[in-house]
Amino acid sequence: MFARLEELGESEIYPYHMPGHKRQPWGRLPPSMYQQDITEIDAFDNLHQPEGILRTLQERAAQLYGSAECYYLVNGSTSGILSAVSGALPPGGHILMARNCHKSAYHATYLRQLQISYLYPPWLGAYGILDAVTPGQVQEALDREAGIGAVLVVSPTYEGRIADIRGIAKVVHRRGIPLIVDEAHGAHLGLAEGFAENSCQAGADLVVHSVHKTLPALTQTALLHVNGQLVDRGLVRRFLQIYQSSSPSYLLMASIDNALDGVIREGDRRFADFLGHWQEMERRLGQCRHLGILPGGGTQDVGKLLICVKDTDMTGRQLYDRLFTRYHLQMEMASEKAVLAMFTVNDTPEGYIRLTEALLEIDQELANSTWQPVAGKPQRIEPYEETAGREMHKGDPGWMSFSSIPLAEAWDMEKCQVPLEESVGRYAAGFVNLYPPGIPVLVPGEIISPVLHEKMQKWIRMGLTVQGVEGGGSERYLEVLKTVPKKEISEPDNVTVGV
Amino acid sequence: MFARLEELGESEIYPYHMPGHKRQPWGRLPPSMYQQDITEIDAFDNLHQPEGILRTLQERAAQLYGSAECYYLVNGSTSGILSAVSGALPPGGHILMARNCHKSAYHATYLRQLQISYLYPPWLGAYGILDAVTPGQVQEALDREAGIGAVLVVSPTYEGRIADIRGIAKVVHRRGIPLIVDEAHGAHLGLAEGFAENSCQAGADLVVHSVHKTLPALTQTALLHVNGQLVDRGLVRRFLQIYQSSSPSYLLMASIDNALDGVIREGDRRFADFLGHWQEMERRLGQCRHLGILPGGGTQDVGKLLICVKDTDMTGRQLYDRLFTRYHLQMEMASEKAVLAMFTVNDTPEGYIRLTEALLEIDQELANSTWQPVAGKPQRIEPYEETAGREMHKGDPGWMSFSSIPLAEAWDMEKCQVPLEESVGRYAAGFVNLYPPGIPVLVPGEIISPVLHEKMQKWIRMGLTVQGVEGGGSERYLEVLKTVPKKEISEPDNVTVGV
Repeated sequence: MFARLEELGESEIYPYHMPGHKRQPWGRLPPSMYQQDITEIDAFDNLHQPEGILRTLQERAAQLYGSAECYYLVNGSTSGILSAVSGALPPGGHILMARNCHKSAYHATYLRQLQISYLYPPWLGAYGILDAVTPGQVQEALDREAGIGAVLVVSPTYEGRIADIRGIAKVVHRRGIPLIVDEAHGAHLGLAEGFAENSCQAGADLVVHSVHKTLPALTQTALLHVNGQLVDRGLVRRFLQIYQSSSPSYLLMASIDNALDGVIREGDRRFADFLGHWQEMERRLGQCRHLGILPGGGTQDVGKLLICVKDTDMTGRQLYDRLFTRYHLQMEMASEKAVLAMFTVNDTPEGYIRLTEALLEIDQELANSTWQPVAGKPQRIEPYEETAGREMHKGDPGWMSFSSIPLAEAWDMEKCQVPLEESVGRYAAGFVNLYPPGIPVLVPGEIISPVLHEKMQKWIRMGLTVQGVEGGGSERYLEVLKTVPKKEISEPDNVTVGV
Repeated sequence: MFARLEELGESEIYPYHMPGHKRQPWGRLPPSMYQQDITEIDAFDNLHQPEGILRTLQERAAQLYGSAECYYLVNGSTSGILSAVSGALPPGGHILMARNCHKSAYHATYLRQLQISYLYPPWLGAYGILDAVTPGQVQEALDREAGIGAVLVVSPTYEGRIADIRGIAKVVHRRGIPLIVDEAHGAHLGLAEGFAENSCQAGADLVVHSVHKTLPALTQTALLHVNGQLVDRGLVRRFLQIYQSSSPSYLLMASIDNALDGVIREGDRRFADFLGHWQEMERRLGQCRHLGILPGGGTQDVGKLLICVKDTDMTGRQLYDRLFTRYHLQMEMASEKAVLAMFTVNDTPEGYIRLTEALLEIDQELANSTWQPVAGKPQRIEPYEETAGREMHKGDPGWMSFSSIPLAEAWDMEKCQVPLEESVGRYAAGFVNLYPPGIPVLVPGEIISPVLHEKMQKWIRMGLTVQGVEGGGSERYLEVLKTVPKKEISEPDNVTVGV
């Protein structure tokens, strides 16, 4: 597609049409961007009714991932999730969804007034993250709840946990309903040896990929795949038209083609290099005595390096800050116990070496000076696969609240602000997200538990971004439902604050 | 903003975060695009909760247009219209909207299950286009219909017709309800002498601008302005978060800043040049003996040149094709009677000269050879302002259907395909759009009248794009409501086919 855009940019055809820049430079933006930014003119097809080049490119993408149909998205995975959920269920339908879904999944249920049942993902306590949901959980929920019309899970999770989609698809299809997988973080899966299969290959009906997250495409680009006969494809297309601009950016679309075209042409070599660098990095980081990593492969995505501060008195946020200020290494995310570094097929060898050496140096210092290992906290972390059964991550993180008033109802109810201090027992009126990645820790209609309250205070003290808590310093507020009285919650004697 | 992106592109900070291209080149995309495409990392703010540079830029945009608040949009005016309509009315609310609204307005009513009353714009028969709606029409509708919660109009229209927003705002505000203006085609208004004021200046409550349509910004960029106290701004923000990607493109946002920054710094000179070239072109086109233009100024937007084939036997589509094939001039749109050429502040002098000379040459030929003026069709077209009263465009274009079954209901009803030939009297199950610009000529639930049926056949024969009619050749199909029986419509004796 880019070749055609270049051709047009160099042609003598004069544009008396949108966009208004007329392919001429303006200000500081590189002229090439303007030259190749077009709209649905003759010979360039229409994303919302593709019959030419976009149709061909979408078919090529479907073939690459092993899906029946594929749609280019210019409004991110957000528009893919909104369209998949809206198209898979009738208004007022009943969805079974993982509680660690992206906020767009919650938004879809609000727009379509869906009834929600949650799958609460297991808690990987040692690393302080949520795991992916399991086929057993899905089976159990489908046995328990009647009338579920579709199931939505996330895999890989933001932190790289990969679900058993094959197993989940089997369980879901036994009921004759579709499985939607938010695979936003897995656009690189199923394309080369050494990486997990993708959810199209594993049998999911609707699969969403962010091309910009784990492949070399511009931000805001994504794909929606459709498979099988359980989903009304016409309805899905309707919602893609609703939730996406009628003036889609050809730069964004060209960047999807450009990313996938490179994978088709030289993916084998590039992914092999990626895997080689990754494994060498993992090998060297094995020398760390205080920091720990979650090794890639199997249920952990190669590319998501979770570095855990383990039994030291350093927090994830402090490690994140040190890596940035001293080494100029910008991490993806910091949590209480860990930082997340992301690698893709487009990293340079330098990227692996700089992070490896910084981590080895920090680990060395942890033994000697500033950051002391905490006495009496010798929790050695084993690679996930080696832990005995699932005992270590049974239950939930402690702070995860349970739904009391349906989201679709609660978000439209009258609300008021209360000091964060006085919010325990009240019902949330809005979302509270720990950002990144923006997965809600509190959904409208959920009760604010003592444990969650304590956690929010702690996250704020640690410098993490808690969206939905207003104000600053000692004056912080939360929006709660005005007309629903506070529920008296007795502080349990032994609150185990997860993480 | 671009300066900061450039700085980052040149820094030695290594990205262990999204996007997956890691600012490194890949394939054919210009490396500068990757270097400056980032995500919400430290120092770059968050579009959905702006506190830094994006907040500053949005405030600057509000100041430029004279609005109270302004939001950058990365999912086009589509997301602005969806958010404005969703935020201005409760679910199930009642909206008064112009029938020439963009499809996104219809989509918003579907998502929010709104009741719709329409304003049918006057028909400018001589030019074959819809005019903008008038304050009198709005007043009349508000007097007639009870319970309307918001009013939505389009100005300028796609063809450049500017409404009396000041007058409409007065009428609407007398009811204490908000006025939403789809000003997607008017981002250049109110910024310089010689151009009409924009709808923020004229008192509208919610105003949507496509920055890419009439200013030099990348495709898919837009703005939403909020004014006054009639709209719940928190609710509007909620919907902006729902309808837009949680990974907004910084290239798109930087291009909004880049466009507006240029206007602030050198807009006076650039707009004066624009106006000068335009007026010189209009002066020269006054020599045409067969083609006619709708002069800019007053109720016709400067920048939208509507060239009418008047009393010749040439169609708009034929003029469009001739301009492209012989002169390599790509028009914005062709209708039955006219072609539309668009000019902005970023056109080159060459753009004005090439079109002027091509039109003069074609006009000359019309007198001499191929295309003959049609005998007995001497309809001289006067500039719009000079026509006596509104007699010439009373009524509707003839084909505009009237609503029978509410859209929100009809679009979810059971449907079937019938041959286009047999569709008269059936109720539409989907939208039919004449593209561009994608304003629906038929909305789900509307009856297919004999006149509209005839027009659809004619548009197809003329080579115009009629979205929503499937198939090709003599086998064309339309989706109609399956369970609603055909209505017998007797063919009126004197069908006046508008246009």
